[in-house]
Amino acid sequence: MKFTINRSAFISQLNNVLRAISSKTTIPILTGLKMVVDQNQIVLTGSNSDITIESVLSASDDSYGLQVDEPGSIVLPARFFSEIVKKLPDKQVTIEVTTGFQAEITSGTAKFQINGQDAENFPHLPEVETDKTVTLANDMLKEVIRQTVIAVSKQESRPILAGVHVTLHDGLLTAVATDSHRLAQRKVQLDGVDGVDYDVIIPGKSMDELSGMISDVKDDVQMQVTENQVLFIFGNTHFYSRLLEGNYPETSQLIPDTADTTIELDAGSFLQSIERASLLSHESRNDVVKLTIKPEDNLVRISGDSPDIGMVEEEVTTSAVDGNDLEISFNPNYMKDALRSFGQSTIKISFTSPLRPFTLVPTEDTENFVHLITPVRTF
Amino acid sequence: MKFTINRSAFISQLNNVLRAISSKTTIPILTGLKMVVDQNQIVLTGSNSDITIESVLSASDDSYGLQVDEPGSIVLPARFFSEIVKKLPDKQVTIEVTTGFQAEITSGTAKFQINGQDAENFPHLPEVETDKTVTLANDMLKEVIRQTVIAVSKQESRPILAGVHVTLHDGLLTAVATDSHRLAQRKVQLDGVDGVDYDVIIPGKSMDELSGMISDVKDDVQMQVTENQVLFIFGNTHFYSRLLEGNYPETSQLIPDTADTTIELDAGSFLQSIERASLLSHESRNDVVKLTIKPEDNLVRISGDSPDIGMVEEEVTTSAVDGNDLEISFNPNYMKDALRSFGQSTIKISFTSPLRPFTLVPTEDTENFVHLITPVRTF
Repeated sequence: MKFTINRSAFISQLNNVLRAISSKTTIPILTGLKMVVDQNQIVLTGSNSDITIESVLSASDDSYGLQVDEPGSIVLPARFFSEIVKKLPDKQVTIEVTTGFQAEITSGTAKFQINGQDAENFPHLPEVETDKTVTLANDMLKEVIRQTVIAVSKQESRPILAGVHVTLHDGLLTAVATDSHRLAQRKVQLDGVDGVDYDVIIPGKSMDELSGMISDVKDDVQMQVTENQVLFIFGNTHFYSRLLEGNYPETSQLIPDTADTTIELDAGSFLQSIERASLLSHESRNDVVKLTIKPEDNLVRISGDSPDIGMVEEEVTTSAVDGNDLEISFNPNYMKDALRSFGQSTIKISFTSPLRPFTLVPTEDTENFVHLITPVRTF
Repeated sequence: MKFTINRSAFISQLNNVLRAISSKTTIPILTGLKMVVDQNQIVLTGSNSDITIESVLSASDDSYGLQVDEPGSIVLPARFFSEIVKKLPDKQVTIEVTTGFQAEITSGTAKFQINGQDAENFPHLPEVETDKTVTLANDMLKEVIRQTVIAVSKQESRPILAGVHVTLHDGLLTAVATDSHRLAQRKVQLDGVDGVDYDVIIPGKSMDELSGMISDVKDDVQMQVTENQVLFIFGNTHFYSRLLEGNYPETSQLIPDTADTTIELDAGSFLQSIERASLLSHESRNDVVKLTIKPEDNLVRISGDSPDIGMVEEEVTTSAVDGNDLEISFNPNYMKDALRSFGQSTIKISFTSPLRPFTLVPTEDTENFVHLITPVRTF
């Protein structure tokens, strides 16, 4: 195996694949980067048990300046190899497998020899059927991920809740996540997906990683599903994630459809108020802030306190306050996550009673995105 | 105590003083920020046992928009207070001591109450004599600190080596630091300092902190010394540091004045070569790189290896190679620190033998700055 390539173009592809590679793995060869070289292209592969990322560097793409002298394959220690390539002196780098699985990396007057492994020992990629492909617009997919992945559970007690439940029926894509304290649900109507049905649970971590990667490109994303894997294809990258196995809890009944008290306000400025209130609540044993709503006085007040440090209260600016008087307490971290997912839009928060979950929806589109938060009992 | 001030101007001064305040301290009140308010100014003070920083916010400086309603003083929990002030909604903030040592912080519709302490319990500042003042140019002082502080010892076994030895005799300022493996010495001839003699050891950490602070301003720096404190004054800031007590070892005899092998090269590109070589040496049990010098072949080669990972070698570009053949090994971290302190300049490295310290000097000024490194025995 021997090839020469433009170093900076190679590094950008290397960085993509490195996202899947962890130095903490129980399978030693997965700390490595797999390179498979043939006359027309190089395929870089990195994997942990959950995610596999594959990047194809084609000789026909001039930016790589790829010259293949001899096809072949090798697995090299990923962290080292990338540090070396990043620090090399010249614009080009030549990588050659010499004796056994030893690789020689040369650039300018610098020459490295590092020990690799047989690429045959690298775990094989899952097979994915290609007959059920759905095309997702890049921005839409990023938004769906951003709005739902925050509600994914970080606890290990219910592994199924560490995923986002994604379904596709009759062209309606629904993504739901809940950690049992809060829930986020986003719906999108897709065109041209007749006859494609999905019902899968994708790990939240995979969604996070995918979101980061598609932020760097503008390409739309092809999604394909099999029994235990999902594949996202964009640009020259294949992103595989394993699926979570099991039954996701039924969530559609959890979202209340009536309200006794509602407020409308700007998500961005309410977020700042919550951040101030949580400065003190974070120091308290039970981290809660209290919202006091008096529609007759057009008053919404947020307050937080910590016996050791002090207290804070603030009148919140609203565009509408309706319904019954209410005092309700909640974890400010859940509220902060939720408000960030709404960006700068105006939102409507609908309450029923101090101990029942309340919902947040954008006032401009109340049907397709809802965030639900369970309050905290403080009495 | 009650005053109103422009929030962003207040924050910039607060940030200065916060540099001295640590949440890890054995003296609880030192986690606090002291504020002393009189009709014309506010003085903010922060301190750990080593460094004290005092910032004077004058009512005559319009940028503060300072309005004092009632003089007084308080100590407030520094970390909280600064987080609160930074997150407040309005352009202005009003701080008022209400009952006891409780402070009310208001800005827009937000109101905080936090518990403070009596400013009388805050340790008093050291007295510094003002008759021995030396003026140091801002850029020069930063350079002296940058060039010497890297050689300060991080080991606790010889506390005196954790300082920079600063002397002033006959107008010659000399700063020396050594951790016994390397040494950095910088000399500067000062004007107009007749009759002022210093011989002090300033903690390296204080020098680092001072360097960071004077980078933000352009003012020259006034330096004053007493028996156990040094005071640096710049802009509206007073920076106090305790001095280390004891006798600094005699260092002038350590610097060799003869050489059997010399090389001249660009510090910046040699640094990159060392960084490449150390990628592998860092993984080895004894972290050393080897320099091979053959003046007859005009050859300088750097190499490093780690049995598990592999090896690297590289021919180094030089502008001159003279003297005897030499193979010498050293810790690449020491070399990296040294080379960084020379920036992009051309340097001369002078060796005597594989086990004797070697020196680095800028070729443009071989007298006033020298860095010395002790090699490592590898046989």
